[in-house]
Amino acid sequence: MSAFTFSKLVIFGVGLIGGSLARALRERGAAVQGAEVIGVGRNARSVERALELGVIDTAVTLDDDAALAVALAGADIVLIAAPVAQTRTLLERIAPHLDAKTIVTDAGSTKSDVIAAARAVLGERVRQFVPAHPIAGRESSGVEAALPDLYVGRNVVLCPLPENAPDTVACVAAMWQATGAVIGEMSGEQHDHVFASVSHLPHVLSFALVDQILDTPDAELKFSFAAGGFRDFTRIAASSPEMWRDVCLANRSALLAELDGYTEVLAKLRAAIDAGDGVALETVFARSRAARKAWQERGGNHAGAAPGAASAALDAMPDK
Amino acid sequence: MSAFTFSKLVIFGVGLIGGSLARALRERGAAVQGAEVIGVGRNARSVERALELGVIDTAVTLDDDAALAVALAGADIVLIAAPVAQTRTLLERIAPHLDAKTIVTDAGSTKSDVIAAARAVLGERVRQFVPAHPIAGRESSGVEAALPDLYVGRNVVLCPLPENAPDTVACVAAMWQATGAVIGEMSGEQHDHVFASVSHLPHVLSFALVDQILDTPDAELKFSFAAGGFRDFTRIAASSPEMWRDVCLANRSALLAELDGYTEVLAKLRAAIDAGDGVALETVFARSRAARKAWQERGGNHAGAAPGAASAALDAMPDK
Repeated sequence: MSAFTFSKLVIFGVGLIGGSLARALRERGAAVQGAEVIGVGRNARSVERALELGVIDTAVTLDDDAALAVALAGADIVLIAAPVAQTRTLLERIAPHLDAKTIVTDAGSTKSDVIAAARAVLGERVRQFVPAHPIAGRESSGVEAALPDLYVGRNVVLCPLPENAPDTVACVAAMWQATGAVIGEMSGEQHDHVFASVSHLPHVLSFALVDQILDTPDAELKFSFAAGGFRDFTRIAASSPEMWRDVCLANRSALLAELDGYTEVLAKLRAAIDAGDGVALETVFARSRAARKAWQERGGNHAGAAPGAASAALDAMPDK
Repeated sequence: MSAFTFSKLVIFGVGLIGGSLARALRERGAAVQGAEVIGVGRNARSVERALELGVIDTAVTLDDDAALAVALAGADIVLIAAPVAQTRTLLERIAPHLDAKTIVTDAGSTKSDVIAAARAVLGERVRQFVPAHPIAGRESSGVEAALPDLYVGRNVVLCPLPENAPDTVACVAAMWQATGAVIGEMSGEQHDHVFASVSHLPHVLSFALVDQILDTPDAELKFSFAAGGFRDFTRIAASSPEMWRDVCLANRSALLAELDGYTEVLAKLRAAIDAGDGVALETVFARSRAARKAWQERGGNHAGAAPGAASAALDAMPDK
């Protein structure tokens, strides 16, 4: 594991993701003597709580250009950890004050749109920008939910650009490794394709089931008899509407492709049910079950496993 | 809560559901002095383990007609707790030995098909049959997974028939209440409609997502980056293929109606994503999120709540 230290870290959006990074780096000894963590928020209220909790040392609001200039001067790392639709605006605020030695990274759930925004705003300075996506989340959000061990044993996907120098990418990798995360690498396009399938689509499908029930006259009766299957399936339907609206729009083409593929699978299953084809149904169900069980046994997202075991299991996985 | 006692209980299919009923009734004092619990299995091996664990007192195999006659003579209650496709066959085995005072009930996930089978096999003796569905399950199955408190605070839906005497229905209700369950009532048709929506459809949707991923060349890459959303959404894709095949076929028409309705919701969301209509998406997501959160706050399926609190929360819910 590479050693990583910083003396000045600037986080745009100090919520669960940004706050957990700050807490993890500090508690794991990555902050040098006198190091400063600066939080930038849309308004004073949004960073005040992070300041009170000691997650950041200095709070700056996005509209305070002078404070932003001071904050960004000599920064080692800038992390953008806000809903993806805000990325371009934030980069526009950052660009005028960006030091040549500062590395910028992000934590967005989509990457192609973020990369396009970075290229448009930063021009050739896009070499300083390493797109990233920590695969961690909790049902709760906001800086109060930030945890120093949120990233332990979790995947962080880097989508390095051809413009990035190897050292620049290595620095961002080392930062995330210092939090206990495991680094994976893929292109932005591949990232968006993979996460459209295993994350974005399931969110849409889960929201859709609740939406369907709500549009029926006996919704209350249905909810009152919903049990464990419904609970698990719809847990992600309690996710942030703003975040998932942004993800759906930002990753539109990959998501539509997955949605169309899924609709075809449903049509296949519908035909089997309609035809009373028990063999076809059982074949699909048995194959899915075997794959789902194998995934869980390989560690799944290592929920429920002991932290030590989880971390060991993930360390044994090859980075991709 | 009505007092319920039995001296002879016969369970066809001693797995999680049947085994938990036996354990609950015994540990909660519903077995009178010298009471007997008889387990009937497809083969000797399937009931042997239940006997070893002390869940049943006597093991009988389905093909042993003489033993079946002895088992059923003078039984208070017969519970059928096997995959729903077996209901008709089991009723055919039971019918020749069914005492006039014995009450038969079941634990099937679908009801219209079970009721049709009972009418066909039992004729006018269908008055002795009270269709029921305990809404309880665990990821593990089999008699080893049986728990005496599986039903505490859980819903059990009764679908009484016009032919049932009120006392007959009350006896089955009292039996389930003795396990700590909360009784709801609806027609078989209504039951199948409600559970097609909140249970059967989500299972199909969850199996379908894993199936879709498996049919892509980068399935392994996708699985290796799947996280908490995928975990929750696909937990039910690890369910029994045989059971869910049976459910899909048994509840075909209600399930197809829900599947078609769901496909329409997906088409609506697809159009919004395609059109970049963030307002429409956020509106759907926000409404779903609010409903899902409200459901959880009302007790959900009371997962994660303290047993006492859960039970109290459910006791406060009106029976339906």
